[in-house]
Amino acid sequence: MTHWITLTTDFGTADGYVGAVKGVILSAFPEARLVDLSHELAHGDVAAASELLARATPFFPARTVHLAVVDPGVGTARRGLALLAGGQLYVGPDNGIFTGVLEPAAEPSCFALENRGLWRESVSPVFHGRDVFAPVAAYLARGGDLRAVGPEVEPASLVRLATPEPISDGDGLRGQVVHVDRFGNLVTNLRAPEAVTSVSVEVAGHRLALSRTYGDAAPGALIAVVGSSGRIEIAVNGASAAARLAAGRGLVVIFRAPRESA
Amino acid sequence: MTHWITLTTDFGTADGYVGAVKGVILSAFPEARLVDLSHELAHGDVAAASELLARATPFFPARTVHLAVVDPGVGTARRGLALLAGGQLYVGPDNGIFTGVLEPAAEPSCFALENRGLWRESVSPVFHGRDVFAPVAAYLARGGDLRAVGPEVEPASLVRLATPEPISDGDGLRGQVVHVDRFGNLVTNLRAPEAVTSVSVEVAGHRLALSRTYGDAAPGALIAVVGSSGRIEIAVNGASAAARLAAGRGLVVIFRAPRESA
Amino acid sequence: MTHWITLTTDFGTADGYVGAVKGVILSAFPEARLVDLSHELAHGDVAAASELLARATPFFPARTVHLAVVDPGVGTARRGLALLAGGQLYVGPDNGIFTGVLEPAAEPSCFALENRGLWRESVSPVFHGRDVFAPVAAYLARGGDLRAVGPEVEPASLVRLATPEPISDGDGLRGQVVHVDRFGNLVTNLRAPEAVTSVSVEVAGHRLALSRTYGDAAPGALIAVVGSSGRIEIAVNGASAAARLAAGRGLVVIFRAPRESA
Repeated sequence: MTHWITLTTDFGTADGYVGAVKGVILSAFPEARLVDLSHELAHGDVAAASELLARATPFFPARTVHLAVVDPGVGTARRGLALLAGGQLYVGPDNGIFTGVLEPAAEPSCFALENRGLWRESVSPVFHGRDVFAPVAAYLARGGDLRAVGPEVEPASLVRLATPEPISDGDGLRGQVVHVDRFGNLVTNLRAPEAVTSVSVEVAGHRLALSRTYGDAAPGALIAVVGSSGRIEIAVNGASAAARLAAGRGLVVIFRAPRESA
Repeated sequence: MTHWITLTTDFGTADGYVGAVKGVILSAFPEARLVDLSHELAHGDVAAASELLARATPFFPARTVHLAVVDPGVGTARRGLALLAGGQLYVGPDNGIFTGVLEPAAEPSCFALENRGLWRESVSPVFHGRDVFAPVAAYLARGGDLRAVGPEVEPASLVRLATPEPISDGDGLRGQVVHVDRFGNLVTNLRAPEAVTSVSVEVAGHRLALSRTYGDAAPGALIAVVGSSGRIEIAVNGASAAARLAAGRGLVVIFRAPRESA
Repeated sequence: MTHWITLTTDFGTADGYVGAVKGVILSAFPEARLVDLSHELAHGDVAAASELLARATPFFPARTVHLAVVDPGVGTARRGLALLAGGQLYVGPDNGIFTGVLEPAAEPSCFALENRGLWRESVSPVFHGRDVFAPVAAYLARGGDLRAVGPEVEPASLVRLATPEPISDGDGLRGQVVHVDRFGNLVTNLRAPEAVTSVSVEVAGHRLALSRTYGDAAPGALIAVVGSSGRIEIAVNGASAAARLAAGRGLVVIFRAPRESA
């Protein structure tokens, strides 16, 4: 029992949806401690939610409960889930939102939310965040048994987003941009190697050496860096690489390591 | 004493106004637990604040303190208020911001903020959120007596926003859109009946059956649903109804129940 | 030890950077209490961060820890700092972000972050917020010794933003706009005197008397008020002075006190 519950939604805050979710949690578990991760995800952007969870949640204390609700299919046949992956607890819809945290987890334990006794008495078909996920998250945060939420399901049965893998391409790896952050940095799916000397990155006709950090380059220079999640990013010192290249998710980025000398 | 204080403002966060309010509360009551509802309300949009409070605050533990500051008349003759309504405590200006929580409350108890001993020593006429409402909210959250904030006033004396009531219209009810949410859903003032079969909703020349949830319709379809607050909403599956209909608050929506068969 | 840690960044929330920082803090100090000041500062706007800290942090309980990360030079030779100023603790980069809190502090104590034993084991050169500043903030919030973070440095050695001082101008003071808030209020560097009768403010060809508060003027009127931080602001009742005057930081504002009568 960590008391901590993090919240990740595409609700914004101005409509009171997040407020209702917080109220339900605190009414069920007054000792809960709430941590906002984000409510500013783009409407229905399940991929961005998956990316956020993968970047942030591994840093939390073990068994923190992460409530994630980007849920365009709310009220349809899609399942609700609670799962234990990488030592963290997650509650939300089965729509791919947990792709990023399931991939690295060795042995996730996944459960379908079917125990209506844990839900609010009246469930709106358009607001499972408030009426299903929030009370289940409160139940888990106060030490409730994960197995009580419903039947265990095979991790392989969960919806997962297509996550493009880099493709070997001669002496390089062909990857792509999978996330654009607030600064306009283009985050790729290319993991940086331990030794990053003598490599180069090709993007949109540019060939870039790896820089150590943004400020090592001239202001306005297009650079490649190893981002904070260990993946190669395309950036501009002091400006937006997304704007500079007029590009976003899907842009091809090629990582070239030097050939072994003969 | 719940320790909990929620915060609702139109301040944004970047200017430090919210930060100052939080600091004042924690200095007065270090054990307070702060919950952000929203700081992203449109400038001076008292109606949106009233809607938010009505949607979110009833879900909180009894006697949670809700600090609400959308206050274009700050420093003028408008009163400050503290009130107990529906089991929740509220602190803010008397400008209609509590309309949504007063309406359903059976017997609200309302008090004008006049006890300067509870305020900050120096009060800026342009920031009662920090200098009047925050210390009063802290006082109430740590168990202070509501009657100590100032004289009790008649609930009927409080400023209330005009809330359009649906009008009977032959076999139907003529209502209107009263709120547009982040998703572009058009929330009306039409309460859905218990049995919602065989009814229809007319809006902007469309006649819609009630759908159970967004995802039950084809992507892009205009639908009517019973929203999470029990009122009829006009929505588009996966997009914005407000954009589709180029409409917002005030749009007429008619609810038709079938005539009794003879 | 107050347990409280406030967070101020230009990260936004949607990318998970703030979430990672929160996770690191809570893993290091599970009893920490987190308070968001803002994550919505403009990218790299160190001056806005300095202004926010100066406006908000003095209201917090003594020895609250304020983590501030607007850090375009992350990973370069710029120092990391922890400091005690005005009774509050601050952690962040040495890039001018603490200008606003250093100025009024009588005897700040400043330390360079060099004790790597307090940092995360692996430090990304592009994310000191997560890997350096967050663990140091957690260390200080749980009562850690400020002197343990690294060597003490002279306050005079810290980077400070140029802060324009008002210039005496005949019978007046010539100042300028130093901040534009969310409401479009133009905050100047002119401190209001105790007695504010019979003074006038000149801006963009207008000569304004000082109003007590926004609502004392007619809707749409351009006014000057003493803002909540004690400085003169140019405002429009119910609208944006920045939009009205098409102006922002740097706009000249002249404060005129009446000449002594002979």
